Amino acid sequence: MDFRLTEEQQAFAQAAREFAQGELAPYAAQWDEEHIFPREAFAKAGALGFCAMYAPESIGGLGLPRLDATLVFEEMAAVDPSTTAFITIHNMATWMIGSWAQPGVREHWGPLLASGEKLASYCLTEPGAGSDAASLTTSARREGEHYVLNGAKAFISGAGDTDVLVVMARTGGEGARGISALVVPADSAGIAYGRKENKMGWNSQSTRPITFENVRVPVANRLGEEGEGFRFAMKGLDGGRINIATCSVGAAQGAYEAARRYMGERRQFGRALADFQALQFKLADLLANIVASRQMVRLAACKLDEGDPQASAYCAMAKRLATDLCFQACLDAQQIHGGYGYLKDYPLERLVRDTRVHQILEGTNEIMRLIVARHILTQEADLR
Amino acid sequence: MDFRLTEEQQAFAQAAREFAQGELAPYAAQWDEEHIFPREAFAKAGALGFCAMYAPESIGGLGLPRLDATLVFEEMAAVDPSTTAFITIHNMATWMIGSWAQPGVREHWGPLLASGEKLASYCLTEPGAGSDAASLTTSARREGEHYVLNGAKAFISGAGDTDVLVVMARTGGEGARGISALVVPADSAGIAYGRKENKMGWNSQSTRPITFENVRVPVANRLGEEGEGFRFAMKGLDGGRINIATCSVGAAQGAYEAARRYMGERRQFGRALADFQALQFKLADLLANIVASRQMVRLAACKLDEGDPQASAYCAMAKRLATDLCFQACLDAQQIHGGYGYLKDYPLERLVRDTRVHQILEGTNEIMRLIVARHILTQEADLR
Amino acid sequence: MDFRLTEEQQAFAQAAREFAQGELAPYAAQWDEEHIFPREAFAKAGALGFCAMYAPESIGGLGLPRLDATLVFEEMAAVDPSTTAFITIHNMATWMIGSWAQPGVREHWGPLLASGEKLASYCLTEPGAGSDAASLTTSARREGEHYVLNGAKAFISGAGDTDVLVVMARTGGEGARGISALVVPADSAGIAYGRKENKMGWNSQSTRPITFENVRVPVANRLGEEGEGFRFAMKGLDGGRINIATCSVGAAQGAYEAARRYMGERRQFGRALADFQALQFKLADLLANIVASRQMVRLAACKLDEGDPQASAYCAMAKRLATDLCFQACLDAQQIHGGYGYLKDYPLERLVRDTRVHQILEGTNEIMRLIVARHILTQEADLR
Amino acid sequence: MDFRLTEEQQAFAQAAREFAQGELAPYAAQWDEEHIFPREAFAKAGALGFCAMYAPESIGGLGLPRLDATLVFEEMAAVDPSTTAFITIHNMATWMIGSWAQPGVREHWGPLLASGEKLASYCLTEPGAGSDAASLTTSARREGEHYVLNGAKAFISGAGDTDVLVVMARTGGEGARGISALVVPADSAGIAYGRKENKMGWNSQSTRPITFENVRVPVANRLGEEGEGFRFAMKGLDGGRINIATCSVGAAQGAYEAARRYMGERRQFGRALADFQALQFKLADLLANIVASRQMVRLAACKLDEGDPQASAYCAMAKRLATDLCFQACLDAQQIHGGYGYLKDYPLERLVRDTRVHQILEGTNEIMRLIVARHILTQEADLR
Repeated sequence: MDFRLTEEQQAFAQAAREFAQGELAPYAAQWDEEHIFPREAFAKAGALGFCAMYAPESIGGLGLPRLDATLVFEEMAAVDPSTTAFITIHNMATWMIGSWAQPGVREHWGPLLASGEKLASYCLTEPGAGSDAASLTTSARREGEHYVLNGAKAFISGAGDTDVLVVMARTGGEGARGISALVVPADSAGIAYGRKENKMGWNSQSTRPITFENVRVPVANRLGEEGEGFRFAMKGLDGGRINIATCSVGAAQGAYEAARRYMGERRQFGRALADFQALQFKLADLLANIVASRQMVRLAACKLDEGDPQASAYCAMAKRLATDLCFQACLDAQQIHGGYGYLKDYPLERLVRDTRVHQILEGTNEIMRLIVARHILTQEADLR
Repeated sequence: MDFRLTEEQQAFAQAAREFAQGELAPYAAQWDEEHIFPREAFAKAGALGFCAMYAPESIGGLGLPRLDATLVFEEMAAVDPSTTAFITIHNMATWMIGSWAQPGVREHWGPLLASGEKLASYCLTEPGAGSDAASLTTSARREGEHYVLNGAKAFISGAGDTDVLVVMARTGGEGARGISALVVPADSAGIAYGRKENKMGWNSQSTRPITFENVRVPVANRLGEEGEGFRFAMKGLDGGRINIATCSVGAAQGAYEAARRYMGERRQFGRALADFQALQFKLADLLANIVASRQMVRLAACKLDEGDPQASAYCAMAKRLATDLCFQACLDAQQIHGGYGYLKDYPLERLVRDTRVHQILEGTNEIMRLIVARHILTQEADLR
Repeated sequence: MDFRLTEEQQAFAQAAREFAQGELAPYAAQWDEEHIFPREAFAKAGALGFCAMYAPESIGGLGLPRLDATLVFEEMAAVDPSTTAFITIHNMATWMIGSWAQPGVREHWGPLLASGEKLASYCLTEPGAGSDAASLTTSARREGEHYVLNGAKAFISGAGDTDVLVVMARTGGEGARGISALVVPADSAGIAYGRKENKMGWNSQSTRPITFENVRVPVANRLGEEGEGFRFAMKGLDGGRINIATCSVGAAQGAYEAARRYMGERRQFGRALADFQALQFKLADLLANIVASRQMVRLAACKLDEGDPQASAYCAMAKRLATDLCFQACLDAQQIHGGYGYLKDYPLERLVRDTRVHQILEGTNEIMRLIVARHILTQEADLR
Repeated sequence: MDFRLTEEQQAFAQAAREFAQGELAPYAAQWDEEHIFPREAFAKAGALGFCAMYAPESIGGLGLPRLDATLVFEEMAAVDPSTTAFITIHNMATWMIGSWAQPGVREHWGPLLASGEKLASYCLTEPGAGSDAASLTTSARREGEHYVLNGAKAFISGAGDTDVLVVMARTGGEGARGISALVVPADSAGIAYGRKENKMGWNSQSTRPITFENVRVPVANRLGEEGEGFRFAMKGLDGGRINIATCSVGAAQGAYEAARRYMGERRQFGRALADFQALQFKLADLLANIVASRQMVRLAACKLDEGDPQASAYCAMAKRLATDLCFQACLDAQQIHGGYGYLKDYPLERLVRDTRVHQILEGTNEIMRLIVARHILTQEADLR
C-alpha cells in the first residue's frame, strides 16, 4: 500500500495545472456565461495528450492507467469542471473506439480524436429511459452491409458540435444483450439535432437531443460484435463515473482553495474571517470531505486498472460519495464567501452549478446506491 | 395554542395563490432568464395590497400581522421566490416609512409605495462591511436643514430601478447609536448606480452598488430621531428575516409539489417513480423539513406580532433553520427530477438558485447562529 | 393561529416540572443503573392525574387534549425519558380502556389505572412481525362466553410488572379486520412472562416477551366490537407516537439546558466554553432543532385533537422528525460535555441511550416515512 | 500509488481476525456487561505480537509500520472496540518506552510490555484541563536523582489495573516545553487510584483518576531529555488518533456485516429486509462511509510512517472523519436491526456505546478540527 504519486504522475498533474491556468482559467467564466463550446481549448488539450489519456497508444493515446487520468482531470476541473467534464466524455468515447473499433474505423477516427482535432459524443440515454439504459429503443436494423438507425437520444453532451457519435442501439431482441455500439459520423444523412438545452450549468458543453431517421451506418462501424454494445457502454461508464467524480473533487479543491484565500483576506468585525472558529471548522470539514472523496476515487480507479471483478461497484460507490460530498464542499466554500459567493465575478457559484449535475448524470446517485446495494447483498465478495 | 388559520387568512392565501398563478407563474422563467425587473407585476401586487401587507392603514397598507403577511408571501414564492423576495423587501421599506417617517414624507411616499406605483430599496450593507452592519461608514453630515450624504452601499436590491431609498448613514459617532435612517429620492443629485450585479439567481431583481457624493437630503426625510437608524434597521431586519425565510418555505413547497407530481407521472424500469421506496422516503423527509420550517417561521412571526422581547432571536433562529432546510428540500426535489431537474424548462433549478442566497443575505446564517447563541448564553430567558 | 399556552396549560407544565424535579430527577440515574421499575413514582404521578391525562373523566381521567398531555410529558422526560415513556404507554392503554371497554371492565379497571394504583401494558408487537402489525398471529378463539388466547408477544413494556394487558389478537380472518382488542388481567392462568430483556436503555421499564397458552378471557373484556382491534391499536399509536416524540423533545431540552450550563462553567484554554464560537453554533443549531421538533409535535397533537382526517400522517411525520433531531441534539449536548458526557455521573449518556429507542419503536422511523409517503402519494389532501 | 495489501499484511489481518473470533468475540458482551478487564486476553494478544505492533524489535516488538498495525487493530475492533482500544493504548505506551526510555528502563519494561505480561497506561489528561494538554499542572520536582511527583490525572485507561504508567509532568516552566515524560511503576508509594468511572461504554477498560502525592521516580525513568515530554506525548497521540480511528472503522465494519446478514435473514411484510430499497440505500451509504474512513486512516498512517511533516494534521483529519462517520454507521446498522438492535443480545448497541467515546477522546473532534484548521490556515503546505 502506497499513497504516494510517482514523479511522472506529479509531472502530469503539474502540466495539467499549467494548462488549466493558462488555457481554461482566463475563459471559464465567459464560456459559462456565453454558452461557448471551446473547440480550440479541446485541441490544445489534445496536443498535450489530454484527449486520450487512457486510450491505446496505437491511436495516439497515452495508454495510461485511469488513476493517472484522474490526476490530470482533477487539475483541470479545479478551474472549469464543465469543460473538463466534456473532455472526460470525449476521452471515454475515444477509448471505446480505440479499444473495440474495427481497424479501418479505428485508424481513421482514432488519431483525429486522440489529438482533439475531432470530437466525439457518447449516445446512450434516451428521452423516456433515463437511468434504465438496458431498455433503450433506438433500433439499428441490418440491411446488407449497413445498419439503418432509427430512434432518439437525449441529454447528449456535445451533440451538434461534435464530429462523431458512439451510439448504443438495438440490433437484437429485448434487454441488454440486444444492444450494439455503432460509430456514426455526426453529419450522416438522417441525423437531426434538437434545440440546445438551456441548463443550470455545464454551459461550455452544448447538450442536445438527437433523432435518427433511417441513418445508414456501415456494419464495419460497429464496435466489437453484435450484442456487445451494452457491455461496452457499461465499461465506458465505469470509467466515466470515475471521471465525473474526479471533476467534482477538482472543483471542490478549487472552491476550497478560494475559500481558504478569502478567509485570509476578508475582514469582518475587525478580524480576518480566518480567525472565526466556526468558519475554521467549516473549512476543516470541507477539506476532509474532499480528501476522503479523492481517496475513494483513486481507490476505484485502481480497482478498474487492476481489472478487479468488483470494480463497477467501487466506481459506483466513489461516484456517489465524491459527487455528494464535493457538491456540499462547493456550497460551503460559497457560503464562506458571503454575498460575493453569489456573484458571477467569483467562481464559486459556477462551481456549484457545474458540480450539481454530477449527482445526476452517468447514472443518478440513486442508481449508484442501487448498484452498490445489489452488489453487496447478492455477492459474497467484500467491498473494502 | 391553535395552529388553524382563520377563514380570512385562508382567503388571503387563496388570493395570493391566484395572483401567483396568473401573474407570476407564466413569466417567472423569462424574468429570470432575461433579468427583467417586472414593474408591472409589482403594481398588480400592490393593487391587491401585497406591497404593504403590514404597513399602517394610514398610508394605504393592510396593517396586518406579520403572520398574515407570511401566508401571502409563501404562496407567491412557491412560483417565483426572486420576485416575491423583492416584494417583501419593498414591504419592509414601506413599513419603515409608514411607521417612522415624518408626516410630509409619509403622506407623499406612503401611498405611492403601498400601491406599488413606486418602489423602495433598503440600503444598509456596505462594500467592506457585510454582516457587520454597525460599523457602516456612509456619512450624513448635517448642513442646516439638510444632510449631506457621502459613501457607498453594496448589494442593494432594486437599486437603479426603484424610486426611493431608505439609507442608513452615520450622523453621529461610532457604533450603532451614531446611525440614522434617511428617505432619499432615488434620482437625487449625486447618486450614482454601479454596474448591475451578475448573480447566480434572484435575476428578476436588479442588484447594484450605489455611491453617494454630496447628496443633499432634507432633515425632514429622517425616520424618527437621530441615532435611531440602526434600531429601525434591525427592526426591519427582524421582519425581513421572517420574509426571506417564508420565501424559502414557499419555494420549497413549490418544489415539493412539482416532485410529487413528477413521481406520479415519470416511469423508470417499468414503474412510476412513486413506487420506489427510496424516493418515497426522500419525499417524506423533504416534506417534513418544509412543515417544520413553516412552523418555525410562523412561531417567529407571532413572537414579533406579540412584541415578545425575544422576537429577534426567534427570527434569527427561524431564518437560519428555514433557509437551510428549504434549500436542501429544493435540491432534493431537483434530484427527484433527474436530468430534467437540471434544465431551465423545469422550475427546479431556478428555485435552487434563487433560494441559495437566502442562506447568505439579511445576515448570513452564520450571523443568525451568533445572534441565537449570544441570546441564549447571556440571557436567562428561554427560547422554546 | 396562536402559539401561546394558556395559563392553565402553563400551570400543568409547572406542576409537571416540579414533580419531575422532586420525584424523578433524584432517582433517574439509579433506576437506570439498577433496572428498577419505580411503581411508587407511577402512583405519585397518578395522584397528580398524569396517569390518565387524556382518558375520559368518567374513569377519573383528566380528559385533556393531547396537546396538554404533551406539556406534562415533556417536562418529565427532561429528567427521565424512560420512566416518562412508560407513563405515556400506560396513558395510552388507560385511554383505550376508558374509551372502548364495556361498562363493567371500564368501571373496574378505569379508576385503578387512572390513579396509577394499577398499571397497564399495550400488547401489539409479535416476535416475528416487528412493524408489520396487521399480520399478527396471536389467536383468540371464541368458546362460548370466553376467548381462548394463544400466541406470543414481544418487546412489551412493563410486562411482568403490570397488572393488566391490552392484547391485540386475531378473532377473525387474515389482515387488519380480523383483529380484536382484549383486556386481559396480567395474572390470568396460562400467561408466561419471558426473561427480562437487557437493553441499551429504557432501563426503568421492564421489557419482556409474553406467551399465552389457552388463556381464557371473558368476551365482555373485548374493547368495542370484534374486528375493531386493529383500528383501536392504530388510534392508540397515533397518540403513542406523539407521546414518544414528546419524550424525545423533553429529553433533548434537558440535554440542551445541561449543555448551556456546562458551557458557562467549564473552562478550556483559559476561556469559558461559552466563548468558543464553534460550540456556540452547535448549541444554537441544537436548540433550533428542538424548537422545530416541539412545534411539529404540537401541530400533530392539535390535528389529533381536532379529529383531522390526516392526523395519522402528521403524527408519523412528527414522530420521525422529532425523534431523529432530538436524538442528535442529545448527542451534541453530550459532545459539548467532552469526557464528562461519557460518564454516568452526568445525565447526558443516559439521555442518549434512552432516546435512541424512540427512533425504533412505536413503528420504526422507516415505517413513519412509509406512512407519510403513502399518504402524500395516494391522497389529494395536503400536509402542511 | 497502490491500494493493495501485501501477502504479509493480509496474513497479519487474517491472524488478527482469527484471534478476534476465538479470543474476543465469545466474551466481549460479558466483559462489557460485567466490566471485566480481560488481562488474559491481553496476554494472548501479546503472544501474537499485538501488544507491540510498532514498538522496536529490540524490546520484542514487531517494529511494523503504523499502517500494518491498523490492519490488526481493525480486525479486533470489529468484534470488541473497547478491548482493542485498550490494546492500542498499551501499544502506544510500549512504543514510547521502547523508543525513548533509557536502556535500563527499556530493557526491564520493554519485553514485559511487548509480551503483554505487563500492561501500561498513558497519563496525560488532567481533571481541569481536558483538551488543553499543554497547561498541565502535575509537577515533577527534581530532588537529586529523583523526581517528586505531585498532582492528579483523570480519565486514565487501565489505571488501577496496569503495571506501569507513562506520566506527563511539569519539570520546568509554563507551556509545552516545561513538560517531561516519566515511566512510573503503578505501585509506587504515593499513588492513589480513584473510584472506577462508570461509563456509557468502554467497559472492558477500567478508567480511573490517579493522584500522585510525593511519588519518587528515579531520574533514569525519564523518557529522553527534560522538556521533551510534550513532544513525545503528541507523537504518541498522532499514532493514538490513528489507532482510535481504526477502532471505529473496525467496529463499523463489524456492525455493517451484522446488518447485511440481518437484512438477508429478517423478513417483514412478507419480504426479506434486503428487498426494501430504502434499507438497501442506507446500507450502501453506510458502507461507503466506512470505506472512505478506512482510506483516510490508512493515508494518515502512511504519512506518519513516511515522517511527513504534515502527518499530525492528517492524523487529526482522519480521526475526526472516521470516528464521526463510523459512529453514524454503527447507529445506522443498529437501526436496520429494529428493536433487536436495542438489545444486548446483539452486538449493535455495544458497538454504538463503545465507538461514541472515540469522538471525544484523544482530543475531541472539535480539537481535531482546530488542529486541521490551524494547519491549513497558517501554513503554505497543502493537505491532499
